[in-house]
Amino acid sequence: MAKPAKTFRPKARVPKGLRDVAAPQVRAEAEMLAKIRGVYESYGFDPLETSAFEYADALGKFLPDEDRPNEGVFSFQDDDEQWLSLRYDLTAPLARYVAENYDGLPKPFRRYQAGPVWRNEKPGPGRFRQFTQFDADIVGAPVIAADAEMCMMGADVLEALGIARGLYRIRVNNRKVLDGLLETIGISADADDRTHMTVLRSIDKFDKLGRRGVEFLLGDGRKDESGDFTKGAGLKAEQISVVLDYVESGLAQEGASRAQVLEGWRKVVGQSAIGNEGIDELAEMDALFTAAGYGTDRIEFNSWIVRGLGYYTGPVFEAELLIEAQDEKGNAVRFGSVGSGGRYDGLIERFKGIKVPATGFSVGVSRLQAALAMLPGANDDTQSDVVVVLTLDPANMADYQAMTRELRAAGMRAEMYLGGSGMRAQMKYADRRGSPVAVIEGEDERAAGQVTLKDLILGTEVSREITDNTEWRESQAAQITVPRGEMVEAVKVILHRHGLLHRS
Amino acid sequence: MAKPAKTFRPKARVPKGLRDVAAPQVRAEAEMLAKIRGVYESYGFDPLETSAFEYADALGKFLPDEDRPNEGVFSFQDDDEQWLSLRYDLTAPLARYVAENYDGLPKPFRRYQAGPVWRNEKPGPGRFRQFTQFDADIVGAPVIAADAEMCMMGADVLEALGIARGLYRIRVNNRKVLDGLLETIGISADADDRTHMTVLRSIDKFDKLGRRGVEFLLGDGRKDESGDFTKGAGLKAEQISVVLDYVESGLAQEGASRAQVLEGWRKVVGQSAIGNEGIDELAEMDALFTAAGYGTDRIEFNSWIVRGLGYYTGPVFEAELLIEAQDEKGNAVRFGSVGSGGRYDGLIERFKGIKVPATGFSVGVSRLQAALAMLPGANDDTQSDVVVVLTLDPANMADYQAMTRELRAAGMRAEMYLGGSGMRAQMKYADRRGSPVAVIEGEDERAAGQVTLKDLILGTEVSREITDNTEWRESQAAQITVPRGEMVEAVKVILHRHGLLHRS
Repeated sequence: MAKPAKTFRPKARVPKGLRDVAAPQVRAEAEMLAKIRGVYESYGFDPLETSAFEYADALGKFLPDEDRPNEGVFSFQDDDEQWLSLRYDLTAPLARYVAENYDGLPKPFRRYQAGPVWRNEKPGPGRFRQFTQFDADIVGAPVIAADAEMCMMGADVLEALGIARGLYRIRVNNRKVLDGLLETIGISADADDRTHMTVLRSIDKFDKLGRRGVEFLLGDGRKDESGDFTKGAGLKAEQISVVLDYVESGLAQEGASRAQVLEGWRKVVGQSAIGNEGIDELAEMDALFTAAGYGTDRIEFNSWIVRGLGYYTGPVFEAELLIEAQDEKGNAVRFGSVGSGGRYDGLIERFKGIKVPATGFSVGVSRLQAALAMLPGANDDTQSDVVVVLTLDPANMADYQAMTRELRAAGMRAEMYLGGSGMRAQMKYADRRGSPVAVIEGEDERAAGQVTLKDLILGTEVSREITDNTEWRESQAAQITVPRGEMVEAVKVILHRHGLLHRS
Repeated sequence: MAKPAKTFRPKARVPKGLRDVAAPQVRAEAEMLAKIRGVYESYGFDPLETSAFEYADALGKFLPDEDRPNEGVFSFQDDDEQWLSLRYDLTAPLARYVAENYDGLPKPFRRYQAGPVWRNEKPGPGRFRQFTQFDADIVGAPVIAADAEMCMMGADVLEALGIARGLYRIRVNNRKVLDGLLETIGISADADDRTHMTVLRSIDKFDKLGRRGVEFLLGDGRKDESGDFTKGAGLKAEQISVVLDYVESGLAQEGASRAQVLEGWRKVVGQSAIGNEGIDELAEMDALFTAAGYGTDRIEFNSWIVRGLGYYTGPVFEAELLIEAQDEKGNAVRFGSVGSGGRYDGLIERFKGIKVPATGFSVGVSRLQAALAMLPGANDDTQSDVVVVLTLDPANMADYQAMTRELRAAGMRAEMYLGGSGMRAQMKYADRRGSPVAVIEGEDERAAGQVTLKDLILGTEVSREITDNTEWRESQAAQITVPRGEMVEAVKVILHRHGLLHRS
């Protein structure tokens, strides 16, 4: 037969900025999600799932990149020409859901949702275009106690994930305080105003860039190390100095109480009504935190917390890891924000024309998982608990299958080798698989009604340590032959020896 | 202040063919996924997660709609002009992953993956454009025992989900048998040949359309009830009759053994080498099924199983529910296929140019969940286990918060009311929420150091049955007042009474 002239072979490659997640990370994420879910459920939240994409107009443009149209999201056209966008967070779809189903929902409406979100941004190291978030929101909650609950729940979540108190901080601010600050220096209160957002985003960068960097961003602009220039807010010197004083008021308060931070901010916002309203709200939150025993070792007020998303209207918060770790090159890595949230009283109004107050907290699961994996003592165990039954004789597949089924029925994970190779390759497979036990029934064993079990963990340890003949003889302990009828119990003994019984 | 000239209000609507999944269904799906995962894990599969979209060329066009270019998938262009597509199944991304990471993987490579997939198809009742699949595949497994394991695992999964033996069937065929059939009537063996695929898809419809319908599809074509015309395969009468005889040979075998079905097929494929190879493979599977005790009440051979996807090359299987249920209108509903799979030896070859044999099984989670929800006795419980603490006095939020925290600390789900309304609305909220207990601390209770607990389940039952004064007095049992210090224990007693303690 003539071969086709040319065969098209696509290159197998994961798309730019995406990644495949292997078994240990999938299991670690599932464990994290279960723990977060436990906390959210205990707070009375119920699950909701929305689809991966929404009508583009329903999502709106609230990303920090909003001024570049069509940037930040992945969009495509439906066959009826309507534009669809992959969700960039879980809050905008919630707003759509609530607006669509408003009359049928209990109010307040508490829901949690976990899932991937997508951002069409420039990927970088550790920065992917798909990542997992786990959100809890209360819609229809006008009282500030709701925001306080979000912050305390954020702290509870981090502790449930094993992050010790003192190694994280929930940092809280209020957009109204920031609005008050801008009012005192004569900048529009409109969040859609370019200068307004540029000033807020400059403040947001204080943690990374320090006073000097923010000063440039508030003024004419800043050139970063790579030579890229970011246009500044164009403020005058006296405006800049007010903003910087405000930002540094947070710093100077190191060790101060939350009430003392608020005192400092009162001076900054002066007569601004909105600014004072924001401070009053924070004072109410402080009282609730204190009553519940959440000190500044868990929740602090912080001047440079802004939150990039355009839809926040009140208290905003970030969960920050204070742990430093080292990357593969030995450089110190600060993890920064692993969760965030805030009040967004206008997001549902977009659809309905009536105010529906709402507040929420979102855990950056992918980011948090990456951080926890870098900590000393993180579990990088590649030991599997899967028993491998070798299939040395193709005519006896039914037998091998029976052994495998018996092991499974006894609660163990087991598989029979289903490749096409011989003994040597099969043992190599069991090894590569990280299997603790290989079950072998060759011709001799079969004739004698026996099976041979290889303890692959012990075998590896022994072969690493063998230095003389005595030890070599002892190493035979890594392999035993038992009657076929005792196989299941004997395998259990080996798994138990290594702490792998009923691990899964 | 002047109002903006015009405010754009997007309509809040879920995109066409998508849906929101509410709490009971999210929980039911999570339970299903956990049970399926349990079976897959016991068979030695490990998790892998790939991203929602892939380069379009890597996914390839294997959907039944493949002859309409750009149909069937959602695609969009990256900023470097490369085309990306949302995955339409979990098999094509697996092939890409294996091809990309071939040398580093144990072979065979066993992985499972659960997640949403997207098809850009015409939505209909119960037919969505996003749905969940849960796949297990073995890549690098040339032996037919791998396919046999897939079928048995499919049966195990359905039984783990509570579907009794006899109420489902794993139906198995082999693409090679179908190729042999086509060979005997002189049709190209090339799966890309239009007539080839049209004949296969006609056979696939036998279950739905019966002999007459398939006859039309094999011939000139068929007009359905809505008047839509489907072009036929254009076979001649004698070709059609061979195909129909083959298809009905499956029917005639009702109650026959698997070996008897194969005997009938031997006659149909005659001298075709590929046809006989397919039957030999099925005979080998039959032997393994029988040795493991899987009778025809679990796994049968079936002539009209074809599988629409273009990439199958050997044994193919479908998991079918045999249960009939009634829809809301009282019409009998057959659920049909809730899982499927097969051997696809050429899918990784597309990338690598070398054959990498593979086989897998996929559970249609969304479809199966919809089916199970329609069965009599399906759980449609809207009873929540969340305790609601009313917040009657805004000045006492810290107190209400403390009560809520105590309940949570004792392992219960609890929330305090965070809306802005009074007693009546708060009780209505607790009711709408499906809460079993409302905790009330009004002015009087507070002064007396007490709290009032309303048993809302008992309250509802009692108020439904009250007919005279005696009962009315007894109904007071639905409400008790206890010292503040005994609140937690008293709430536990009520939850326990209704079987809701530690449910979550």
